[in-house]
Amino acid sequence: MTDAAGGLVMTCRGGEAWMADRWRIQCQAAADKVVSAEEAAAFISPGDRVGMSGFTGSGHPKAVPAALIGRAADAARRGDHFAVSVWTVSTAPELSGGLAAVDGIDLRMPYQSDPVTRAKINAGLLGYVDVHLSHVAQMAAGGFFGHLDVALIEVAGVTADGALIPSSSVGSSNSWIGLADRVILEVNSWQPAELEGMHDIYDGAVLPPDRRPLQILRPSDRIGVPYLRCPFEKVSAVVLTNDPDYAAPLRPADSDSQLIAGHLLDFLTHECRRGRLPATLLPLQSGVGNVTNAALARLDSGPFRPLTAYTEVVQDGMLQMLRSGTMTMASATGFSLSEEGIAELHGDVAAYRDKIILRPQEISNHPEVIRRLGCLAMNGMIEADIYGNVNSSHLMGSSICNGIGGSGDFARNAHVAMFLTPSTAGNGTISCIVPMVSHVDHTEHDVHVIVTEQGIADLRGLPPQRRAQQIINHCAHPDYQPVLQDYLDRAAAAGPGKHTPHLLSEALSWHVRYLQEGTMRPG
Amino acid sequence: MTDAAGGLVMTCRGGEAWMADRWRIQCQAAADKVVSAEEAAAFISPGDRVGMSGFTGSGHPKAVPAALIGRAADAARRGDHFAVSVWTVSTAPELSGGLAAVDGIDLRMPYQSDPVTRAKINAGLLGYVDVHLSHVAQMAAGGFFGHLDVALIEVAGVTADGALIPSSSVGSSNSWIGLADRVILEVNSWQPAELEGMHDIYDGAVLPPDRRPLQILRPSDRIGVPYLRCPFEKVSAVVLTNDPDYAAPLRPADSDSQLIAGHLLDFLTHECRRGRLPATLLPLQSGVGNVTNAALARLDSGPFRPLTAYTEVVQDGMLQMLRSGTMTMASATGFSLSEEGIAELHGDVAAYRDKIILRPQEISNHPEVIRRLGCLAMNGMIEADIYGNVNSSHLMGSSICNGIGGSGDFARNAHVAMFLTPSTAGNGTISCIVPMVSHVDHTEHDVHVIVTEQGIADLRGLPPQRRAQQIINHCAHPDYQPVLQDYLDRAAAAGPGKHTPHLLSEALSWHVRYLQEGTMRPG
Repeated sequence: MTDAAGGLVMTCRGGEAWMADRWRIQCQAAADKVVSAEEAAAFISPGDRVGMSGFTGSGHPKAVPAALIGRAADAARRGDHFAVSVWTVSTAPELSGGLAAVDGIDLRMPYQSDPVTRAKINAGLLGYVDVHLSHVAQMAAGGFFGHLDVALIEVAGVTADGALIPSSSVGSSNSWIGLADRVILEVNSWQPAELEGMHDIYDGAVLPPDRRPLQILRPSDRIGVPYLRCPFEKVSAVVLTNDPDYAAPLRPADSDSQLIAGHLLDFLTHECRRGRLPATLLPLQSGVGNVTNAALARLDSGPFRPLTAYTEVVQDGMLQMLRSGTMTMASATGFSLSEEGIAELHGDVAAYRDKIILRPQEISNHPEVIRRLGCLAMNGMIEADIYGNVNSSHLMGSSICNGIGGSGDFARNAHVAMFLTPSTAGNGTISCIVPMVSHVDHTEHDVHVIVTEQGIADLRGLPPQRRAQQIINHCAHPDYQPVLQDYLDRAAAAGPGKHTPHLLSEALSWHVRYLQEGTMRPG
Repeated sequence: MTDAAGGLVMTCRGGEAWMADRWRIQCQAAADKVVSAEEAAAFISPGDRVGMSGFTGSGHPKAVPAALIGRAADAARRGDHFAVSVWTVSTAPELSGGLAAVDGIDLRMPYQSDPVTRAKINAGLLGYVDVHLSHVAQMAAGGFFGHLDVALIEVAGVTADGALIPSSSVGSSNSWIGLADRVILEVNSWQPAELEGMHDIYDGAVLPPDRRPLQILRPSDRIGVPYLRCPFEKVSAVVLTNDPDYAAPLRPADSDSQLIAGHLLDFLTHECRRGRLPATLLPLQSGVGNVTNAALARLDSGPFRPLTAYTEVVQDGMLQMLRSGTMTMASATGFSLSEEGIAELHGDVAAYRDKIILRPQEISNHPEVIRRLGCLAMNGMIEADIYGNVNSSHLMGSSICNGIGGSGDFARNAHVAMFLTPSTAGNGTISCIVPMVSHVDHTEHDVHVIVTEQGIADLRGLPPQRRAQQIINHCAHPDYQPVLQDYLDRAAAAGPGKHTPHLLSEALSWHVRYLQEGTMRPG
């Protein structure tokens, strides 16, 4: 509809015209579809599969999920049940947790880290499919998660010719729009308008046999266009919002994180001296969390520059490196920032737009590009075993923590795959170095370097028993070192084979003891 | 040296001119270096690292390894010790086994399958590093296995301008020549001269940061040149040989293999009907062995054509498909043929040269190409667990069988990663479906389809408990099905978490029982 002056008028929040942000929608076809969040949520039926935008804390829809939570809560009060499948990497508690808390989620994929969602999964009340992020688009296109009914996508605006300006993450938004029957857009005026131009949307990678080489030779290379496209006949509703992204709390780096960061810097320095890395290193990938933020802070004051990143998320540490000039370019698929980080980004989005490219997660995590660029992958983990197998996803073998996320995409194809963790958890009751991990996400073949506050183990080129000795000597906590050495010695003497000696009857006994006695410490 | 007529003369086998095959060496610089195998072996010192050509049964050096075996045996008789590190994928027993039998190998990488080598490794007498084949070149170039002293490379001939015609495999020959201080060539006149032109050698992929996209869009695309190059100042010796490749014994497909092949064909037919695969399928990758050969034989008489392969080895089944016209092109890095297969190939090498490309193993197994083409990966395995983790390399958690080879390269980046095995081994005393695998080479995230003679489990898109039910219902042997179901039920009821329920105190008890009682069957 048009107002008296012929401009676009949008109705929202139950019919009230919200003129302040009308300029975010420059396209009449989109403006005509503006409704309230509750009206939009009515386009979603119980049992629908809903692909949502969002990657960690950034770019998720805000208003329609809240309306869905309301519907699910109402249904519960009536003794009824309202739930949908949720496909997203968004970890915003107000989306995931809120919906999970009212049993509004049937199945979740491909990543989550919200405490309520996690508790429901581990109670067997919510199905969760833990997929490599680089596999999500092609598996969804293949129909392995069922048919996608609705795409619920936050954007920063709609241009006059109907192009969608993505918001603070891309994730799978392009895939969801392509696959879904119906599309619901949230136009969030909280997102800076200057995000326009930061994105690089490429849709050509999805299914074989006609894939072309991805012509990304540097993190700064663009191969797509800055906009998402959606045929407007698929758009069921447009909702106006003005709500912030989820700000991840950022704790100051503790002494363990500082020590880990120090060992990592020593290692990179050593690799440069050996001529195995250039002084500008290779494109960095870094998981989220305090340990990797500490590592980035250390790199920011280190000798290597200019640096680049080819990674999943721009977190606070990386934003700081871009600000200081240590890093000149970061390619990612979203942000994972604290409140301070968000304020910093919003303070000068236009300047950051020249240093940050946001791509679909299929491209940010693509094996072709990761292998070609030779990424240096730094990811946290839950535990490693003496032979270098890494568990990123499960507590005590059975309970999901977050999911593998992109750690497998990067570790498997990176030039150097590094895994970082303090050597103990749970006030020392858990050793993060164990005889055998209770779940494997990264095999002995894929793990190059393990770092704890105790030191670093470089496993490259070593047979299993030498790897074990490196890990015990350099990474294990002194409280657990003698027990690990004892296990290795006895396994090497009495195990059924001496290539990767194990005593299978006690390989998992540390976890069993923890479950029974609350500690891995020998009695 | 030249003879009276001005032609090239080569001396070999202690000075005797071997005129019959002189035309294999068209280059004077190479002809000047012809010596006996024993003289060539003298260029190898104890403790040297020796990179050898060869991939499974094909293209390995024959004469100099025999001379090394002699030196090691002599040393042993003197109470002395002669051993070298051997870098090769050759599994020819006369090379690996012979040298291992006289304790002539210090360290082996990256793949082996010879019984003597395996026994030495599992006795703790021989170090073995089990590396993804696509990682070998870059890790060797990074120096992680130490400095390469000698490249010992079989070729089919030397052209007038000094180019080397590779023999029946490429493997890492290009890498070893580039990295080694000294090069020893074996010119094997048993290899058909018509191999010239079959190879596609590309050296640009090794180290970042200046890697370019690999412009392989179809298995038939060539990106390199047909020859290996080596500066002749690095060539220490040239040895003339006339010895056959190792012919792998080919047993007729048993009923289990036939059943597995049938299930696989049904699955592919289903995928085509669903529109998820084209009628020409996608490029096939197939491991070696009777099960995969049976699958290829079934495909040869199946409805899908024309097919292509992007794989590691051309085995008998694939050769048959190329002969029949079912397959039009196979890209690989070597052959793994029976005596009959070798006779068939040698009967018409020139015709097969138009249908086969042999590439460096770094390219045949490259994640970029495997992902782009969308390979259908079919590999054998030792065991899978109920959640879909696969063990390809270890018996009872400790003893190496062969190694991961390229199975990880393909499974991790393939479009469909399929793992095949009979449901039991050891006359039914071993279940190949277990509660928890004793070693993980392919994680739950990477395994799409499991096939046994019992049936097929399609795990794509399923959360862990539903995967478990599929595997138990469709893949487990009836003798073990109730015990697996009982484990799953009890774990789901009493496990510490219900996402991937395990009872860690008994997860590996099947293996422990086998080690103690010789059977996994419950008492």
